[in-house]
This record gives sequence, C-alpha cells and structure tokens, in this order.
Amino acid sequence: MKKVLVLYYSRTGNTEKMAKMIAQGLTDKGVTVDLKRVEEISVDNLPEYDGYIIGSPNYFGTMAAEVKKFIDESVKYYRKIEGKLVAAFTSTGMIGGGGETVCLDILKAFLIHGCICLGFTRLGHYGPVSIGKPDERVEREISEMVNKYAEVLKRI
Amino acid sequence: MKKVLVLYYSRTGNTEKMAKMIAQGLTDKGVTVDLKRVEEISVDNLPEYDGYIIGSPNYFGTMAAEVKKFIDESVKYYRKIEGKLVAAFTSTGMIGGGGETVCLDILKAFLIHGCICLGFTRLGHYGPVSIGKPDERVEREISEMVNKYAEVLKRI
Amino acid sequence: MKKVLVLYYSRTGNTEKMAKMIAQGLTDKGVTVDLKRVEEISVDNLPEYDGYIIGSPNYFGTMAAEVKKFIDESVKYYRKIEGKLVAAFTSTGMIGGGGETVCLDILKAFLIHGCICLGFTRLGHYGPVSIGKPDERVEREISEMVNKYAEVLKRI
Amino acid sequence: MKKVLVLYYSRTGNTEKMAKMIAQGLTDKGVTVDLKRVEEISVDNLPEYDGYIIGSPNYFGTMAAEVKKFIDESVKYYRKIEGKLVAAFTSTGMIGGGGETVCLDILKAFLIHGCICLGFTRLGHYGPVSIGKPDERVEREISEMVNKYAEVLKRI
Repeated sequence: MKKVLVLYYSRTGNTEKMAKMIAQGLTDKGVTVDLKRVEEISVDNLPEYDGYIIGSPNYFGTMAAEVKKFIDESVKYYRKIEGKLVAAFTSTGMIGGGGETVCLDILKAFLIHGCICLGFTRLGHYGPVSIGKPDERVEREISEMVNKYAEVLKRI
Repeated sequence: MKKVLVLYYSRTGNTEKMAKMIAQGLTDKGVTVDLKRVEEISVDNLPEYDGYIIGSPNYFGTMAAEVKKFIDESVKYYRKIEGKLVAAFTSTGMIGGGGETVCLDILKAFLIHGCICLGFTRLGHYGPVSIGKPDERVEREISEMVNKYAEVLKRI
Repeated sequence: MKKVLVLYYSRTGNTEKMAKMIAQGLTDKGVTVDLKRVEEISVDNLPEYDGYIIGSPNYFGTMAAEVKKFIDESVKYYRKIEGKLVAAFTSTGMIGGGGETVCLDILKAFLIHGCICLGFTRLGHYGPVSIGKPDERVEREISEMVNKYAEVLKRI
Repeated sequence: MKKVLVLYYSRTGNTEKMAKMIAQGLTDKGVTVDLKRVEEISVDNLPEYDGYIIGSPNYFGTMAAEVKKFIDESVKYYRKIEGKLVAAFTSTGMIGGGGETVCLDILKAFLIHGCICLGFTRLGHYGPVSIGKPDERVEREISEMVNKYAEVLKRI
C-alpha cells in the first residue's frame, strides 16, 4: 500500500487544520498516512514514503524557516528520494500576501530533489491557500486536492 | 515634473478598472500620467518616463502574452531604462489562482532591465491583486499603492 | 505507445538544437515524438499527447511571448490535459541571466493546467539551461533528462 | 553618510568571499558598511541601515534556513524598514542549479517588507551568482553591482 507523509509547521493552528483535513482525506481514500509536525520527524524517514504533502504558513512569501531547515537537512538524501510525489499547501494572512509563492517554493525545492510535482485546476493551482482559518472554500479545495493526489499516487 | 506610464492589458475590463484607479490616484498626487493599453503604445516611448506601473490579467500564473510581447520588444531599450521605478498589479479569477506570481513576474522582467522595483506592506505585497471585479479592498489597496509609489518617485 | 510533444521556440537556433537532441534521445528510448516549433502546431493537438517537453530562449527571465501566446491559447483545453507529464528547457545568454526562471515559469504554467512536473538532480534542476550554444555539458544533461523523463512516462 | 548592511551566511566560504568583495567595493565608494554573518547580528539592528545587501549559498533553490530564520524574525520590524534599498547575491554549485532563484527569493522577501529592490543589466540580473569559488567574472560583476547600488543609494 502507498504511504504518504503529510508534513507541516504551524504556529496559529491554521496550517495544522489543513494538514489534518488532508491526512483524513487521504486515509479515507485508503492511503497510509503519517501526519507529522516538522519538529517531530527526521529526514531519515523520507525515503520510506511514496510521497510528501508539505504545508507551511506564509512567512515572507515563502515557507517558515522551520520547514526550510528540514529541507536543508534533506540534502542528506539528495538523489535518494527522486520520483516521490509532492504537493504543497499553505495558510496566509491576506489575498496577494505571498501565499501562492509559499506553495511554489515548496514545489521548487522538491523539483531540485528530482521529485514529481502536482498542480491543480480546481483549487489554488500550486496547492490550497487558506486566508486565515480554513473555511468551506478551503475544505472543498482540499477534498479536490486529495482526490487528485491519491489518483496520481496510484499510477506512479 | 515626474512622468509615469500606467500600462495594461485587459480583456474583461477588471485590470482596466484597476489601471484607471491607479492613474487617477497618481494624477491626484500631482504626477503626470499616461494611461495606455499595451496595444496603444510603442516601446519607443519607454525612455521618456520616470517609471512604469504595469498590469495584466492572470493568464497561467503570469502576464498575458500581449504584455509579454511588449516586454520582449523592450529589449531594444536594454540598458537604456535602468533605474526607472516599477510596480505591478493584476486581476485574477480566484484566490491562489496565480495572481501573485503575475505581479512578481512583471517585477522580475524589470529587475532584468535594471529597474527599481517596489514592494508593499499594506496590500498585496508584490502589487494589488483583484479577485474578479475590483472591490473596496482593492480600491483601498490601490490608494495605499499610489501613496507609496508617488512618495518614492519623488525621491529617486 | 506513449507519445510526447517536444515544443519549442527558437530565434538563434540554440533552443532548437536542444529540442532536436531531446527528440532524438526520446526516440532512441522508444517514445513516439513530435518535434514542433510553436508556430507549427495548434493547441488543438495538445490532448493527443501523454506529455510535453517545452523549450524557450530566455527573454526577460521567462519564456518568449511566442511560447506564452501558445500557453494562453491552451486555456481552451483547461482541465482537459490534466496529468500530462511536463518538463522544460531553455537557452540563455549568461549565467545568472534568468535561464532558471524560464524553466520554472514553464513548469508553473503547466502546474496550473494540473499537469505533473518533473525536476532533476543531475542537471539544471528545473530543466537543462544552455549558456549560448549547447556544449558537452548540455548534451550530457539532456541525456540525463531524457532518461528520467522516459522512465517516469512509462509509469504514469 | 549612508550606511549599508552586508549580511551573509556561508559554509564553504564562497558566499563569504563575495560578501567581502561587496563590502570592500562599497567602502571604496564612500559608503559606511557593516559586514556581518547572519549569526552575528540581531534584527534589532535593521532599522539603523539605509539598505541591505544579502547573500546566501543556494540550498534547494532558495536561501539557507539560517538566512530564512533571520528574515522570519525580522517580522518584528514589519512596516518599519520600508523603503530600504535591497540587493542580493549567491554562490551555488552549478549552472541551472537554482542560484538565480536564491537571489529572487531574497528580493521577494524584502518586497514584502516594502523595500526597494534593485535589478542589474551587466551581471546576474537578480544579483551576482558565483558558480563555486568566485572567479574573475564574479569579481567584475560585483564591481558593476557595487557601482549601481552606491549610485541609487545616493539618490534615495
């Protein structure tokens, strides 16, 4: 069975809420999911997963330093996690406030890892963006995201 | 007196509405403004301005081809428009739909021209992003944008 | 058999040389390839392929307007080309001259199409970047790119 | 007299070499310069400068976590460092390896701070990019960068 890591950092709880929705959605689809805060997990676990879904609040238009630190440490597995399926999500304070570039920057880091990155047409294209607390729009978008991620995961 | 080009492309009229608000705001601040659709102006006019404010609807997370064509043609004035003051704006269909990267990509093109690019703290950071028709939020953001742009323009 | 479109725009011939190397490499791997200049093909052909490899010279840190025009027209097939496998390549004038962001912007546009985007570890991470005429480094990188693209294509 | 912070993180010493060249160049132009490793300085010092030139090695296509941590902490001075003049530089392992996006991401963070960001025409457009140890090309580029930065700094 395919196994996915939902990895996130959260201070206010908004990104965490999104992470939980994503983990639940994937579980409902029959995917094995580990839901972890970035502080709870070591990069040594990365190779065991088939894919990663990574979320961060928007700090200055990109991921929080806590998430970047994890990604920097992941250099230890450079060329060893190629082909994993990656998607991103974020919560942010305001429209136009840099949330899209958070998702794009997370994908960019995993393109460098030689991963396979997923875009979306029925939600924030680079991944769902919550403006503050996740609302119904975000819930719907996460459900679309999970559908597509699970479907592609099966094929690769 | 400082002279600014507000340049835009618009199909649905949303970006055009924003362009008009910006032009009006700058005029009210005592700046000389030319408001032009991208089809109405030649790159040969670029050197005569002290700055550009450039807007495009979001097509695939970046500016419309019509705006990109104008920018490609502007290579004729490469190294001849260094130091102009540049800001960007966009209208898009949905939150997370790529609007932020439109503004960022416009700024990026003018960083390559050696221009001076402006970010914002009281609005979409890379420039105002309208979700569909410009509403009161966008109106307020444009007013903040105009204040800052005019203030920096005076100094450079 | 899987069928891939290698699509490019080229003025000086550098991007074209890269396109031909990629098409040849894929053909050698048993993939059916159509090699097309962006002016030679209509967006109506997009749905028939399993993937796209798209190249553009670097004009102002992103794709040429000719490529952007094609992408803008592809909105006609929005939500109809989800899941296609996409990679990018570019030729540029100088190191640090914006070549990387060309590849990244092409990928970004196809993330918006809901496509699956590929990064690399043994070459320019967002796709091969030629500095001027493709040299041996670029040849080697294209060979790595083709290997990985063909391998992932088989699985999805 | 104008005062500039040259701030960097470096592990191999390449980014540090670039930082020293930039600091020396600015000093020769009569600018007061503080040259600091990111670990040596607090965000509390940010308001006292007229501008920042920020360098990081390329870790996964963006700044090192150490630099991002500093930027995250700088939120304390949000809206209090608007209008500072910002430029970026990086050292990276290979062409196409993500160096350009390091510079662009640093600028992006300071656009969010409402700063004024500088692009270049005679060097890496978003800032100088060293491939490994800084060579003569990089030295020449840094000299051009310093000229332009010092010239714009005088005016703003």
